Amino acid sequence: MASSPDALTLLIDALRRLPGVGVKSAQRMAFHLLQHDRDGALGLAQALGDAVRSVRHCARCHTFTEAEVCATCLDPARERRQLCVVETPADQAAIERSGSYRGLYFVLMGRLSPLDGIGVGDIGLPQLIARVDRVDEASERREVEEIIAATSFTAEGEATAYAIAKAFEGSGVKVTRLARGVPVGSELEYVDLGTIAHALSDRR
Amino acid sequence: MASSPDALTLLIDALRRLPGVGVKSAQRMAFHLLQHDRDGALGLAQALGDAVRSVRHCARCHTFTEAEVCATCLDPARERRQLCVVETPADQAAIERSGSYRGLYFVLMGRLSPLDGIGVGDIGLPQLIARVDRVDEASERREVEEIIAATSFTAEGEATAYAIAKAFEGSGVKVTRLARGVPVGSELEYVDLGTIAHALSDRR
Repeated sequence: MASSPDALTLLIDALRRLPGVGVKSAQRMAFHLLQHDRDGALGLAQALGDAVRSVRHCARCHTFTEAEVCATCLDPARERRQLCVVETPADQAAIERSGSYRGLYFVLMGRLSPLDGIGVGDIGLPQLIARVDRVDEASERREVEEIIAATSFTAEGEATAYAIAKAFEGSGVKVTRLARGVPVGSELEYVDLGTIAHALSDRR
Repeated sequence: MASSPDALTLLIDALRRLPGVGVKSAQRMAFHLLQHDRDGALGLAQALGDAVRSVRHCARCHTFTEAEVCATCLDPARERRQLCVVETPADQAAIERSGSYRGLYFVLMGRLSPLDGIGVGDIGLPQLIARVDRVDEASERREVEEIIAATSFTAEGEATAYAIAKAFEGSGVKVTRLARGVPVGSELEYVDLGTIAHALSDRR
């Protein structure tokens, strides 16, 4: 074997930086690309370069966009008094697919996770405060009246929702949380106890 | 949303061409790279381009290499009368790690899989025949005396081993197969029945 790492070893190492990819998967990916899909490899190289060059954060909602302000934030048909705060663009896409929300979004690009060293400054909370304080030019009033904390119902997501609620305490902006309860289509028998307890206490 | 696909969508599509990566994983990878590891993304783009440009097949053993002939094939210390036929460079690496083989290799870069349209011509069998027929310049004799079929013990690997044995029938080259049996360190109670049957019939 050559003493300096060869192009194949360097490719396997580079693939291992992808989340969820270990050394076996990286090997399999590298062999597959070189043996069966060199066009795909070159296409991926191009797409990576293009995305790094052109994708940035929306100046208003912090999501990924190629423009100064993303298409959703510029959409005049959206309700501007509601701001749904989500962790990732994937969460935003899930809410969009539900078709039941017409307000705007703010994408934190993460959630509080003190153990991983992710604090309030890392998840875009200062940007969220600046966004909410933004004054509409026409009415000279603050646009946002309600923040919907749509972070995950995990320990970290709950902590993030709590930090959001704390940040806007006494600001006059209402902070709400997605309802917890039994998922649509599920049988009670198989629902976990914490969910049933929440569904009972939040019954309507 | 813009009507033409944006750089982020193109990146997610490109990542989905990796084996074992669905749309959710591709999204997670794209978000991770753009949010936390843009250097990693550029490094991966570079490594992909470099590998596609420089990695080719060894003229003798068909494995990936950047030279005309790979370092293993050129190693004068290796036993040249034995040729171990494996499916992938990963299998070759596994045998090397065992430290119990000092012969040469031939890497098929696949295995027979008629259902996927992978036939004899797609797995380098013609190259294997040409390799075995290669005559040593000093002795003016065929170097290879034994082919060890080290393909997987799956239906497809067995079919590949059978095709190799068929191809060299009557050629004077001995074709052997890795021994089947109970893995080292395993308790008989937990070994599957097919393995136990093979271990019994091949007992020594």
